[in-house]
Amino acid sequence: MQLKSIGIIHSPYKERKKCPPQGREEICWIEVFEEYKGGLKDIDGFSHLLLFYWLHCSKNYSLLVKTPWDSEPHGVFATRSPNRPNALGLSVVELIEREENKLKVKGLDALEGTPLLDIKPYLPPIDSKTKVRIGWVERTDFSKVYGKTIKELKHIQ
Amino acid sequence: MQLKSIGIIHSPYKERKKCPPQGREEICWIEVFEEYKGGLKDIDGFSHLLLFYWLHCSKNYSLLVKTPWDSEPHGVFATRSPNRPNALGLSVVELIEREENKLKVKGLDALEGTPLLDIKPYLPPIDSKTKVRIGWVERTDFSKVYGKTIKELKHIQ
Repeated sequence: MQLKSIGIIHSPYKERKKCPPQGREEICWIEVFEEYKGGLKDIDGFSHLLLFYWLHCSKNYSLLVKTPWDSEPHGVFATRSPNRPNALGLSVVELIEREENKLKVKGLDALEGTPLLDIKPYLPPIDSKTKVRIGWVERTDFSKVYGKTIKELKHIQ
Repeated sequence: MQLKSIGIIHSPYKERKKCPPQGREEICWIEVFEEYKGGLKDIDGFSHLLLFYWLHCSKNYSLLVKTPWDSEPHGVFATRSPNRPNALGLSVVELIEREENKLKVKGLDALEGTPLLDIKPYLPPIDSKTKVRIGWVERTDFSKVYGKTIKELKHIQ
């Protein structure tokens, strides 16, 4: 199972230390390599995309992870930590603009130079869920994580 | 960028031909390999998970793809076709039950024996979007794709 880069992410965040957790309000540009440009046909019609990328600054992972949100260690698969057995990153982004093989997006949590792996259209009937329980995250200071209190987030049950 | 399997998907769908498009109502079992079991701590608290897997029956991809939903070819990145430059699959699934290293889930679109790559908790504030445009999909017979007419799907703008 060998991955290849289909493009590159240009982000204002150059280093992991300077990237705020859930720093997703900045505008990023996605450059899709010329040989894959044909695969972008009709992408302009979608307001939101799923971007898959390789967390190239990911370090050795642990099965138990401490996050910035509480002092308890959690299983890595119950966190969004970038240090994972497979360093796969995912963001749901808003597509602002397309210029040929470049996509201007908002909502991307990735560093400058991150290799792009895949783009899929975001389809709410299969990708958006309501009445959701969010386990340990619910017990943390949620507003620090998302900038909103849990009561302001209507999707949470 | 080399991936490793962290588990295996057990699905009632044994062959691609017999797997209905968007066949996601069946119950599947996810077996996480023993060496990664520790990473599942606290996963029980989440009602929904993002499952990443390798589309092992994926064939050679084309940049332009015909889908079952209309006669127009679309760019592969504007479709959810399994034949893609990187054969990455994603489903948002409901976690029904956990038994040690096995997860019983609903809403998974994968074949029996599919290699599991990653599990992340589903967090509506970053993963769920409303006011969404869905491009060419909107012009197709939507009810065939999702079993609901477009008007029944309140997330679509």
